[in-house]
Order: sequence, then C-alpha cells, then structure tokens
Amino acid sequence: MGAANDWLTDKPKEECGVFGVYAPGKDVARLTYYGLYALQHRGQESAGIAVGDGRQVQLHKAMGLVPEVFQQGDLDELKGYVAIGHVRYSTTGASSPINAQPLVFRYAGGMLGLAHNGNLTNVSELRARLASTGSVFQSSTDSEVIVNLIARYGQASLVDAIMKCMIDLKGAYSLVILTEKKLLAVRDPHAFRPLCLGTLPGGGYVVASESCALDTVGAHWVRDVAPGEIIIVDEDGLTSLQGMLPRRRAHCIFEYIYFARADSLMDGFNVNRVRREMGRQLAREYAVEADLVIPVPDSGIAAARGYAEASGIPFEEGLMKNRYIGRTFIQPSQDLRDLGVRLKLNPIREVLAGKRVIMVDDSLVRGTTSSKLIAMLRDCGVKEVHLCLSSPPVVHSCYYGIDTSNEEELVAARMPLEEIRRLINADGLYYLSIEGLLSVFGERRNDFCTACFTGDYPVTVPQPGKTGKFSLE
Amino acid sequence: MGAANDWLTDKPKEECGVFGVYAPGKDVARLTYYGLYALQHRGQESAGIAVGDGRQVQLHKAMGLVPEVFQQGDLDELKGYVAIGHVRYSTTGASSPINAQPLVFRYAGGMLGLAHNGNLTNVSELRARLASTGSVFQSSTDSEVIVNLIARYGQASLVDAIMKCMIDLKGAYSLVILTEKKLLAVRDPHAFRPLCLGTLPGGGYVVASESCALDTVGAHWVRDVAPGEIIIVDEDGLTSLQGMLPRRRAHCIFEYIYFARADSLMDGFNVNRVRREMGRQLAREYAVEADLVIPVPDSGIAAARGYAEASGIPFEEGLMKNRYIGRTFIQPSQDLRDLGVRLKLNPIREVLAGKRVIMVDDSLVRGTTSSKLIAMLRDCGVKEVHLCLSSPPVVHSCYYGIDTSNEEELVAARMPLEEIRRLINADGLYYLSIEGLLSVFGERRNDFCTACFTGDYPVTVPQPGKTGKFSLE
Amino acid sequence: MGAANDWLTDKPKEECGVFGVYAPGKDVARLTYYGLYALQHRGQESAGIAVGDGRQVQLHKAMGLVPEVFQQGDLDELKGYVAIGHVRYSTTGASSPINAQPLVFRYAGGMLGLAHNGNLTNVSELRARLASTGSVFQSSTDSEVIVNLIARYGQASLVDAIMKCMIDLKGAYSLVILTEKKLLAVRDPHAFRPLCLGTLPGGGYVVASESCALDTVGAHWVRDVAPGEIIIVDEDGLTSLQGMLPRRRAHCIFEYIYFARADSLMDGFNVNRVRREMGRQLAREYAVEADLVIPVPDSGIAAARGYAEASGIPFEEGLMKNRYIGRTFIQPSQDLRDLGVRLKLNPIREVLAGKRVIMVDDSLVRGTTSSKLIAMLRDCGVKEVHLCLSSPPVVHSCYYGIDTSNEEELVAARMPLEEIRRLINADGLYYLSIEGLLSVFGERRNDFCTACFTGDYPVTVPQPGKTGKFSLE
Amino acid sequence: MGAANDWLTDKPKEECGVFGVYAPGKDVARLTYYGLYALQHRGQESAGIAVGDGRQVQLHKAMGLVPEVFQQGDLDELKGYVAIGHVRYSTTGASSPINAQPLVFRYAGGMLGLAHNGNLTNVSELRARLASTGSVFQSSTDSEVIVNLIARYGQASLVDAIMKCMIDLKGAYSLVILTEKKLLAVRDPHAFRPLCLGTLPGGGYVVASESCALDTVGAHWVRDVAPGEIIIVDEDGLTSLQGMLPRRRAHCIFEYIYFARADSLMDGFNVNRVRREMGRQLAREYAVEADLVIPVPDSGIAAARGYAEASGIPFEEGLMKNRYIGRTFIQPSQDLRDLGVRLKLNPIREVLAGKRVIMVDDSLVRGTTSSKLIAMLRDCGVKEVHLCLSSPPVVHSCYYGIDTSNEEELVAARMPLEEIRRLINADGLYYLSIEGLLSVFGERRNDFCTACFTGDYPVTVPQPGKTGKFSLE
Repeated sequence: MGAANDWLTDKPKEECGVFGVYAPGKDVARLTYYGLYALQHRGQESAGIAVGDGRQVQLHKAMGLVPEVFQQGDLDELKGYVAIGHVRYSTTGASSPINAQPLVFRYAGGMLGLAHNGNLTNVSELRARLASTGSVFQSSTDSEVIVNLIARYGQASLVDAIMKCMIDLKGAYSLVILTEKKLLAVRDPHAFRPLCLGTLPGGGYVVASESCALDTVGAHWVRDVAPGEIIIVDEDGLTSLQGMLPRRRAHCIFEYIYFARADSLMDGFNVNRVRREMGRQLAREYAVEADLVIPVPDSGIAAARGYAEASGIPFEEGLMKNRYIGRTFIQPSQDLRDLGVRLKLNPIREVLAGKRVIMVDDSLVRGTTSSKLIAMLRDCGVKEVHLCLSSPPVVHSCYYGIDTSNEEELVAARMPLEEIRRLINADGLYYLSIEGLLSVFGERRNDFCTACFTGDYPVTVPQPGKTGKFSLE
Repeated sequence: MGAANDWLTDKPKEECGVFGVYAPGKDVARLTYYGLYALQHRGQESAGIAVGDGRQVQLHKAMGLVPEVFQQGDLDELKGYVAIGHVRYSTTGASSPINAQPLVFRYAGGMLGLAHNGNLTNVSELRARLASTGSVFQSSTDSEVIVNLIARYGQASLVDAIMKCMIDLKGAYSLVILTEKKLLAVRDPHAFRPLCLGTLPGGGYVVASESCALDTVGAHWVRDVAPGEIIIVDEDGLTSLQGMLPRRRAHCIFEYIYFARADSLMDGFNVNRVRREMGRQLAREYAVEADLVIPVPDSGIAAARGYAEASGIPFEEGLMKNRYIGRTFIQPSQDLRDLGVRLKLNPIREVLAGKRVIMVDDSLVRGTTSSKLIAMLRDCGVKEVHLCLSSPPVVHSCYYGIDTSNEEELVAARMPLEEIRRLINADGLYYLSIEGLLSVFGERRNDFCTACFTGDYPVTVPQPGKTGKFSLE
Repeated sequence: MGAANDWLTDKPKEECGVFGVYAPGKDVARLTYYGLYALQHRGQESAGIAVGDGRQVQLHKAMGLVPEVFQQGDLDELKGYVAIGHVRYSTTGASSPINAQPLVFRYAGGMLGLAHNGNLTNVSELRARLASTGSVFQSSTDSEVIVNLIARYGQASLVDAIMKCMIDLKGAYSLVILTEKKLLAVRDPHAFRPLCLGTLPGGGYVVASESCALDTVGAHWVRDVAPGEIIIVDEDGLTSLQGMLPRRRAHCIFEYIYFARADSLMDGFNVNRVRREMGRQLAREYAVEADLVIPVPDSGIAAARGYAEASGIPFEEGLMKNRYIGRTFIQPSQDLRDLGVRLKLNPIREVLAGKRVIMVDDSLVRGTTSSKLIAMLRDCGVKEVHLCLSSPPVVHSCYYGIDTSNEEELVAARMPLEEIRRLINADGLYYLSIEGLLSVFGERRNDFCTACFTGDYPVTVPQPGKTGKFSLE
Repeated sequence: MGAANDWLTDKPKEECGVFGVYAPGKDVARLTYYGLYALQHRGQESAGIAVGDGRQVQLHKAMGLVPEVFQQGDLDELKGYVAIGHVRYSTTGASSPINAQPLVFRYAGGMLGLAHNGNLTNVSELRARLASTGSVFQSSTDSEVIVNLIARYGQASLVDAIMKCMIDLKGAYSLVILTEKKLLAVRDPHAFRPLCLGTLPGGGYVVASESCALDTVGAHWVRDVAPGEIIIVDEDGLTSLQGMLPRRRAHCIFEYIYFARADSLMDGFNVNRVRREMGRQLAREYAVEADLVIPVPDSGIAAARGYAEASGIPFEEGLMKNRYIGRTFIQPSQDLRDLGVRLKLNPIREVLAGKRVIMVDDSLVRGTTSSKLIAMLRDCGVKEVHLCLSSPPVVHSCYYGIDTSNEEELVAARMPLEEIRRLINADGLYYLSIEGLLSVFGERRNDFCTACFTGDYPVTVPQPGKTGKFSLE
C-alpha cells in the first residue's frame, strides 16, 4: 500500500488506480466513488470522477483522499449512466492539481474523458511530435499526450483513432475512457498494469484496476482485460476488439509482492495466496534458526505467515501498527527524531525479549526504515534479528508506472548484500531468489515483468538511469 | 462592482480583470496579489497568478476571492521576475475551477501563460477550425482557443504568432501573456476592454485593467495600451508594436457607468468625474420636484451627488449599506424572504419620512431590486419616489465581455417605460438619454461602444439573442 | 466600525454587540443571525447564538465573522422561540474561543444564557470574592463573573437574583439573558452602552445594541432600554422593572463619533445627523481656507459633509476605499511596506492635484495612519493638508467597554498639538472642542460619558493607567 | 477500537484516553501529541492538550482526530514543562465542543487543568449539591463537577482537596491534572480504568491510559498507578500518596476483550496474549468441526489465532479490511445499502468457497454487522458459518465509562441464544463462558469488573436501565 507518511516508509509507489462503469439506471458516480475507495491504496494524492449522461461529460476532481475530494453534493451533481474514476499516488514536490485525473477534453468528435494507469516510455517523442504541429499541454501527464493523439486521429471513428494510438504508444497503459455515451477500456499489448472486467447484478459493466473494487460495488468478476484488447460498452452492450496483437505478457510482479490489495484476483492469481507462497518459498531457500517469525505490518503479514508455516517456527505479531496513522501527522522535531518509526509500529516486549527473531517484509528499497526497526527490536531485548524479504534485490528503476527510487538511491544497487546487512545491523539478511519468486507462479512463470530485479526491460526504455519525467511545473 | 450575493443585486457582471508585471529584483507574485486585490471588483469567482523565473512558469489558481485563494506560502513559492494575474467573475452554475485563469501551457516554443479580459465573437468558429485538425479543449474559455491558435502559428517568433492570431480573433480582448522570460500585453483594435501601462519606481513595468491597480502597487500611470497594440517587456526593456491597424474606438461605456472603480483613470477619463457629470446631465434632462436626492449605495453615489449639485436639491444618504455583506451569507428562508434587501440596505426614517425623494442609481436590468427598495422607502413614510438612472435603458445583450442578462430578461426590452414604472411602483422613472450620456465625453463621444443601448454592434455578433457560450461542462 | 486589518487602522475598538428575540412561531435563530449581521461592525472576532425551546438552551458559537460561524445547518438545529446573540471584537493576542459569547450555564435554577456588552470596573474583586468560596472560571470574561453571581443569588427568583447582582456590579453593562423560556434585557444605571427595544409585526419582542438591527429583522423600534431597567419577556408578555435607581446618564459619546452604524437611532439621536452636525460645528470653530473638503472613508464621511455644508467649501471624495478589504489579507513584506495604506485607500490625483485640502476624520488615536495618508496626498500634488477631527483629543483610557490604547500610546496624551501636527506632517490640525461636541446634543448635553477626553469617570475605575484585564490564557 | 463509521460497526465505545508528562527542557506539548496519537483508538471525537509553564496554563482543544486538531503552529505555541492531554470518543448526537477536554479553570488556588477517563455514578447528586450553593456548569462532563468540587475544597492544599473529593466521588475515574507547575495522576480505589506510569530517558515522568503511549514517546514503563493512589510530580520529583484505601480491584475486562491496543501492558497482562488465550479457551469450550478459522479484522485477529492454535484448524485471513476506511465516508444511499459492510470488509472467495468456516470476533452487541457479514460469506459459497465470540453475552449496561447500548438494544438481553443464531443466520453461535474468560487471568481472576456480563456492579449504580446522562445541550 502506497504509504501516507513518506518519512515512515521505504516502499515503491504505485502510480494510479482506475475504475469505469456503464450502468443506465444506477447511480454511477456513487458506484465509482466506492470503487475508488477500494482502490485508495493505489494512489492517495488526488482523486477524480467523470460522468457522461448522453449529452455531456461532467467532471469533479481535486487533491486529496477519495472521501476528502467528494462531498455528498458533489456526487449528487454528477448525474449520468457512464462514469470513470481515477486515484493518483502521492510523491513529494511534483504533485499538482493540474495533474489530477480523469482529464476531460472536447475535441472534434465530442467530449472525451480519460484515466490512465501506467507509464509511456516514448512520451517525450510523442509530445514533441504533437507540439511541433501546434498541440499545447497543460499538464505533465502521459494522459494528455494520449488524448491529443486520439484527437489527431479522431476525425472518423473513436475506436479507429484508439487503435492508431496504440501503434504509437510504447510502454504500460491500462486506460479507461468515456464519451458522453460510451465506456471504453484499453490495456497495452504486454498487459503491464492490471485491469479486469465485471458485471453488475441487474445489468451493467464495470472495469477496474483490481477485482477488490468489483467486489466492493457488488459486481461479479468476469475476466481480466486481455493484452492489447479494447473493450467498448454502449447501448449495444459489450464489444471486444483486439486493438493490437498481444506481445509477450509482462505483468508487473511488484503488484503481487506489494502493491495490490491482498483480496484481489489478478491475472489468474489470488494476491494473498501468492504472498503466502512467497513466504513459504523463502523458508525453503533459507533455513534460519530462530524462535519467532514476525511480520512488518501490513505488507509483510502474508509472507511471514507462509514462512512460519513452511519453517514450523511460531508466528507472532511482534510489531503493532497504529491504525490511525494518517496523512497530516506532524513530524517529530529534531530532538524527537528518534521516535520516528515508533509512531507507526510498536514492538511488544513481552513477545520479543530474549528471542531470536525472523522479521519478514516484502522488499527493501533504501534500507532506512529497516535499520530503525531493527534498532527498536534490539532495544526490546531481541537477541538476533534476521530480515527475510519476499522479493529479490531491487536494482533497476521501473519505467512502466512504478515510482521506485532512482538507481542511485536503491541500496541494493549500490552495495553488496553483506554491506547492507551491516548497514541495517541485522544478524542475517535474506532475499527471495528470482527463481524462487517465479516458481510461485508455476507454468505461468514467464508472464511477468521482472525488470526491476533483472534489468530485462520488455519495452525499450528512454535512457537507463533517468525517469525522463516531463516537468510542466 | 460585480456583486457578491446575486439575490441582492440586479447588475450586469464584469467578466474579468488582468494584471501583469515585469520587475527583476522585486517580489512580482506579491505585487500581482495586491494588483488583483485592487481589481477584485472585476471578478470574485476565481483568482490566479503565474510567475516566470527565466526557466519555467509556475501557476497557482483556485476558486474564491484573492485573499482566499492565496496564502502566504503560496506567494512565497512563486519566485521569479515576471508575473501575470487574473480575477474572474461569478455567475451561478457555469463557474468551475477548470475555467480559472491564467492558463499555462507548454507548446513547441516553451511555456506560455495567458490571462484574458473580454469576449470573442467568433470563438465557436475558431474552436471548430482548431478541433478539426486535432486540437483538444479542457475549458470553455476563449483563452484556451487563443493559446491553441498561438501554438499553431508559434513555430517561429511568438510575436509573429500573436500578430497572426489578432487577424483571426474577432471581438474584445485585453490580454496579458507571459513566457519564462517575457511579459506581453495585447489590446484588440477596437479597445473594447480597458488596459493601461505603468512603471515602477526603481524599474519595472506594470499593465492592468484599471489604473487603481497601478496606484495600489505604487506604480506610476504612463498611458493606456493603444487599440491593436502589442507591448513586449523583456531584458531589453519595453517594445511596442502595432499588431493590427486600429479600428474605430469602442470602449465599453458600462465601465464608466458601473464597472470600473471610481478612482480609475480610463482611456482619458476619471471615472468618478464622469459619473458625477452623468448625474448632472440627468438633472438637466429631468427637472423633478423633490425634497431630497439619495443614492443607491455604492454604485449610485457619484451620480446622485451630480444630480444634487445640478438641481440644487439637498443630497442625503438615505440608505445605509451594511459594509460586511459577504459571499457566504445564508439567504432568508421563505417566511423571512421580505427581509431581502434590508440585509444590505437600511433606509433612515429620520431622513426620509414625509419626503419626496429622488433615488439615483446607475442602471436598471431586471427591476427586481428597485421594486423592493421603493417598497422599503414607502414603508418609511416617503411620500414620493422618483427613480433616476444614470444610463439609458439596457435593451440588447453584450457580446464583448459583459454578462448582461439575455434580452428576454432585460425589463426595458420587454415593456415600455410606463409599465416598468408601475411594476416597480415608482412615482417617476427617468433614464439618462443616450445623447446626454455621450455628451459627458465631449468631443470623444464617438469612442464608445453603446451596443447594449442601441444594438449598434461594432463587431458582428454570432446570433443576436444568443450569448453563444461554449459549455464544456 | 471596528476594523478588519489592524495595521491599516488607528481606531478604538468596540467590545461587543448583543441581540435578543422572543417570538414563538418564528425562526428566532435566523432572526438573530440577521440581527448579528447588522451588528457585525461592533465585533468581528467571534459570534454566537443561544436558543431556548421551553425545555433547554442550545448554543452555537465560534471564532470568525457571523457568516463564517454559522452555516445553514447550524441555524436549522437551533430550534426554539427565544434567542440571544453576541458578536465580539477582535484584538491581537487575547482572542480565544473560550471567550466567545453567549455563555450558557446550567445552575440550580435551570439553564441560563448570557451575552454582555460593556466592561465592569470591579470584576477582579467580584471574581476574587466568588473564587474564595469555591467558584471556578474558564474564561476571562466579565460575563462569567456575572453568571456566577446570579447563580449564587439565584436560589429563588431569577429576577431577584439579577437585582441583587446589579447592586454588586460596577461599570458598564448592557445584558441580554435567556432561560429555557424567557428573554431578559438589563442596562446599567448609567446606561453607558446602548440597548433598545422593538416589536415584530405579528408578535414578538426584540432587543439590540443598535436600532439598525431592529430594522434589519423588520422590527419596529419602540424605545431605548432605560438606565437601570430590567425587561422580562415571557408567555405573559413584556414586563419592565426598575432594577436599580437610575444614576446620571453617561452614554458613551464615542458611539456617536465612531462606533455606531450611521443609520442607528440611539438614545434619542440619529447617528448620521449627529455626525454631520459635528462636522458643521467643526467648521464653525475653525474657518480653514481651502479648496476642497475630503473625508477619510468611511468614518469621516458624515462629518466631512457637514463641514463642507457649513463652510461652503466643495465636498469631494478624494480617497477611494477598496470595498473588498477583508480579514485574511496577506500583509506587505518589509520591502513593500510603504504600500501599506494604499491597499485600503487610493487618492484620486485628478481631484486632488494642486489643491489645498481639508481632510476630515472622526478621531486620531496613535497618529500612524494619518501620517501615511497625508504623505500619500502630498505625493498626489496636494498643496496643503489640514486635518480636521470631529472629536476632541483622546487623552484617557476607557474602562467601560472600549478598547482605546493605553494612555502611553495615545498620541494626544503624550505630546502637544503642535508636535502632533509636525509628526503627521499636516499643515493644520484641528480638534473639535468638547464644548462644541456637546453642543450638538443640545439640552441633553450632560447625558454623556466624556471620560476619554476629560478624565471625568462617572464610575470609579480600578487603577488609572491599567486596564486591569484578567488573563486566563 | 472505537469505530469511525457507526453504521459499519457494532461495538461498545470507549469513553476516553488520558496522557500527562512532566519534563522540564523537553517539548512536552509534542510528546503529549504523540502520546494522544498512540491513544487515538480510545476516542476520535475530540482532542486537547493543556500545558503549564510555571506561570500559567495554556489550552488548545477542538473536535476531530488528533492530527486534525493540532497543526504545527498550535504545538509551537504551547510552551512549558508540564502537559496533559485527552482524547474523547465519538457517538452520534451528544458530541459537542463544550465537552472536549482537558478543562482548564482558574480558581482561588490558581489555574488547574483536568482530563478524565471513566464515569461517575453519583454525578447528578454531586452536581445538584454544588448547584444548590451557587456553582454553575457549562458542560455535561463529570470533569466539570470534579473541578468544582476541588475548588470548593481547595482553599488550602490542592492534594488535600483532591483527597476530600475522592471521598465524594463514586464510580470510575483515572484523572490527570496539572497546575501551572505540577502534574498529578489519580486512580479510583477500584481501579476501573487503566492508568500507568513511566519515565523518560534523560529525566521526566509520563502517565498514560495505556503503555503503548509510553512506548511511542520513548518512555520506559514503570508500573500501573495503584487503586486509590495519587501521584504528584513537581520540582521535588515524584511523590505517591494513598488518597483512599483500595477497594476490591475491578479492572474493566472489556479493555482486554476489545478496547485496549494489543501492544499494551495493562495491570500486569499483555493484551495481545490475553486475547490469544481467550481464543484458545474458546476452542477448548467448543470443538466445532470446520475447515477454516477466520477472524473479523482487526478486533478478532488475536482470538482467532488462538482458536486456530488450540483447535488445529487452519487460520486464514478470509476477510480483507480496507485500510483507508475513514471518518467522512459518504454512506450508501438506499439503493446501494446492501453494499454496506462490503466497503469495510471483503471476503476472499478463493479462500472461502465451499468451506466450513469458524468466524471469530470479540463480541456481539446488536448483531447487525454479524448478520451482514454472514450473508456476505454465504454469497461467496461458504458452506457453514460458525460465529465464535471471545466474550460472554453482554446483557447489562456499563456505568463506569463504556458506552454499551442501553439494555433494550443489547441483543443478548432481549432474546435467547438460539434466537440470535437464527437472526444472524449462523450455523453455530458460541460465546466464551464467564468462567472460561476469567480462567485466562489465572489467580488474578477476581480482579476484574464483569458487570456487563453478570450485572454484579462493584459500585452502586444510579438506576439500572438508565445511563443517567446529564444533558446540557
């Protein structure tokens, strides 16, 4: 889960979550609101909903969490029968209202709203090409580039225009699009980012980044959107087109490791089960001697349980999380800085004192939080701390929609394992092997993007080492 | 002054106010803030400031009054040496954050910010033309159309692009534009909406809709921007170009009657003096017998004083205004509805009882407020009420940047004077004649647009009777 | 009018305004809201309304202007048939939610709400006496002391308790009180602070600090509450008691000079007329040669007009006020500090240049604003500036409910007139004489408190030179 | 954990949490802020901090969560060396700013701030006694009564006054008190509500409702405050007095079942361990045949794990909780009402389908949520649902600081077990026996209040069946 307080966390950030619904006779704005609520973990910076009523598209979006952005009255004003929604992640600095989504545009073909999860790798080229012939850009989002491309191609049929766009777009994109009357969903040919389809009892279709959003609005999961597929929902029902030939599947493996909600079913796998299996595999790879297995909540819970099951070492909740950790928390001043991680997690001395502990987390990015956690455990009288991670070392940047740090900041890219272990003062440090990670997925082991571990990028990236962000402001 | 509480007022609405400053070494964001504060009467819906620092353009804008939109920290972040600002008016319904200005775009030539006062008459054609070749629009503002036009022409020189645009644009526009490094100001060849130029002591240039904004930031008034002129301010100082040949001057006469602040000097005339002279002329045209002249504050004060001076009838402040009337006032419920206008204006019985009163106001649009005021005066024992208006009857819609009501709502377009008089229950109703109004301006009497009184539109309008608003949402 | 931006003003502060209504079948909360709105000039720091419905008293109060404190829903929840309200002034520092009024208490006799305008001179003694026998205090308000006194005396009849209190209370108090079922109004025996009574058409009674509040809610003015009078309104109608024998009347003369709204009728005098007459008297006392009379808006307008009438010198609005000056305005930073007063008032060069000007204001407290105004006028080319004040020099602190500065800060107490004139750089400086001021009131000339001019305190004050504020926080 | 959205929960409400710190040289306001943050689960309605600096006591409090109530600047203004803080719970209706704590009073002995957790059973009598001799009350809190009692006794020594008060007070109270210079902590002779003591490294003392707050601010747990004990911390260090003779211990057993944070150590027991043991005991009492044990997160997790361990039935997280469930969530409209509990908890079909499930929760109050959860599980294809509760049936109201529903609303008081089982449509319904519950605490089994299960009230209660709330507003 993308974290609320950056100084307390050390995780990659998910870029976005998307949701779309076509359901005449239902309150589509409210369904989208609940859908976004279920996807809140995919983005806490901004939220937005666009609704079409057959004649026009209305939009409400702002910075903030879903329940902060929408008041009762805002939803009541968004009348219609087709809606899309978007949540965007939070990083320091580059956040701005102008980048909130969905984007809603009027073009020659009418009105169009678009919400995007993913990251294009050739957006600078596309933007330059469009600008050279007179396009202007108000935001730094890939989405605005996509909309301009659609508009350039869009004189005749919208679907034709989208198909032409797909040929131009490189990288990761799961799109939900609406017009005054239609809902569309598009997934790139590698299917980097998740997108699934459901039906509402009583009629209507829903698409969402994760199946937990379908569950929340009472929809039935039908299937994932296929690589390269375009789905169109309108008064004639659902139509599916193969917009591009599928390429080799490259589902983001970090969705399973960390991002996705545990209750989601994603491209054929239940996330919670996968995480537990990763923990089991970790235990198989490393037979650490210890008295207890404890998770770093919440992200390490499933893997820790798996580890405990496979190893037979007792599972304990040794670290308690404050459930009220929120966004606007005042940070400790310099003299209280060492309180840091204590505000979020509290070790239970009665459980831990005198014990040899295996602490399980999903990943290690910069190492700062782990270092503080281990110091805190030692304060409680823990005799040994072994940190087990249910992912391999992250050594490469992502260009497909995840905000890992730059390579210079990735601790595993800068120093050997033994040095990291000393840095965080662990008695042992164990990463799940790539082989072990992929084994969890069985015969589908080749369907995933593992670029952040291996540097094997399924789609050419602009310039390794740079994220190539376009900064409008 | 565009009014805060629509239900309490019956005045045309000004569309906008603009401000720009180029002043290396000064806090240009703060100067713009104070400038907009002085122009707040021109728009209370939204406010925004864009600042260039040589490398980029930063933007902050939101719905609300200037001091609501900007907090100290917002201004502190807007570092640079060139800035533009905008205030936008408030109407019910069509208001939306997406229409707030300035607009800031990135195009092939770099970054561009634009703020606009006025209204184009051919914006639908321009938008359609641009859309047909792939432009997209996020707002319903003329400004976005102008920016797209500039981008289409803008491969070479920005000034060349602006000159080409001016050939395309029909209607009223006073523009302030910035790039990362430059300030530009543009006024349409008829000079419909005001725009003036000043210098800062110690160096730097300022442009603003009204001279009161120059005064407020301590700038010295230099001159009005000329019809069709383009002003460029950059490191080489100020350059002036004649972007288009000037057409016949058509300054909006309602600026003098109602909109502009009384302390502004506008196209050669001090607004307060003009208003007083209108009152004197009104007295010359109608020698009404009465005991007192009272103004409807604040808009009728100057004319009432003029009327009193010319007629010799004593001037009294018979209606007191609550200075705290603000935006968020809770409206009276049905059973208290008759309190209505009392919350804003209170008649002084001691002054009024038993008197024959000439009440002077600047204009009458729908007649609803006048009707309530007269009833309130009669309650106080006023014997006779004669309503004198310092403008002719408003019988035509404006297409150049003023939100008069539709013609169907203009009471003077719907019924003869005698009927209006009965409707509002006045003993007399007197409009300043057009001839009398123009006589106030002496030999410059032909330099004004009087279309709302005469239907004589200086620039062809789309379809009489329709305001032709483009509604994105 | 107590000013919004302290750094822009140099006026004494009014402590409070009070309002009460008893009107079964009417929306008393909303009537009180409008009444407070009309009294907003008497206090901008906090606002509150308490409502009784026969069974209980409900309360809503908070920091801020009336329309900020109350939202539609807040009023809707305040159901009942009797209500009181209060607005409190704003000073720097000592403002706190805990001091907002009305206060609502439960005591042995039931529930009681109280709102107070004025200042007790023996509050420290009373508080000490109560504390010594076990009372506790949450605020620094006189009102809490009064309520505790009532509770101590209040075993039998509330009115008896109030009469006993009045014997103890020294100083100025205009009180409105409610119980679950009754409205009471009390005025001290000197009648320092104003309080008047009205009736609602269709039934019901209203009391208010000023008659403008009666007008605003559509009530008819009946009379002022008499010195020492207790008014009780309940199901038996209105009862009047003489709670204490009246002492010599000592109405605050500064209400007429500055505080009260011009449209109020107060203890027999229309405020606007009194101010105009003060201006006339000023002209009679000082025959200054000049070309123009200009007011400092808004407080000097009526006196300036009187001066112009009596002197025959033309009246002009030479200084224009920005009508949008609000509370949250960001103050100029050091380098823009000289903009100061310009943000509020703008001189009109066309009117002023080359002229000898008489600038009329109501009073001069510290002299800082006048000094800036005169400098600004001289910048505009004014040849001579004569400052005429419609009050005598303020040389003593007030202990009866006005926040004049301490005597050390009162410029007229620190230096002779000629020195002040040089300090503010005026060509002439003229104060209305005390004799002249009182002459305005004719045979009622002895009914006023003039302590701030003369040091003649009608009620003994604690320690001259100290305001004796009790600071809880 | 007291729940944010009442419509989603069915749990008793904790009344409050308290915190106090004495630490010259440290930022006591900020330490209190973090301490309250750790206690946020004990109250989400309002929060407040009072700070003493040797001369005075300053206060900041408001409605809302801790990070909503305090901004950086608020903490910076609260300078001093002794502080107390309070969080208050949220119920519908009776919440009001006037009831927020701490209360700060000035009395004959100086200034006093007080924060209270608990509920007095004789508050009406005490209030009546005080009122009959002249005390007045602004709030409906017990705390105001306590402060008035202290003031009545407080002429000589504060500690003497507190000891006299303790003789008068009946019921539950854990108090933290400050003066300008001292911190005091008081616990009633039955020790109903928790209160513990810690020391800060480098000097200073901390008291808090739960030890998790000590951990969070980096304090070392020392001991629980003893029944009837008064602790005084001032410049002479810590002094302990036995204010009253201890009575039989009556620690609230619901703290262990539900309220307290799992990482707290309370009166000798680690909460998490106790909960797990309750689950084990439940398994011992009821050998239900099933495939899975799942908890209702978060409150049922520990007991579910215990149940799984003791029974050998696999533990699974079958219900996923949305971690972003917040306070301002818009509730589903009528047509979406059945989404209800789905917004908070999502069942994982892959885990549950076709299984016989034991769902473990801590308690059942009204039964509404359980009913919805079970329906949702059945929708997922669960074959059997057995609801196991780690507490006996709640059949009596609490008078010592917990907001259980009235007895009429307690489902277990209204109908036999079999009827409840049918109501919620469970295949089995099992409550932990009182005997089993107490067995968890071993030889200390008699130290707890079990009145809500047994009706055996340790302190006489006003009138069974009425909560006896005093309603000021």
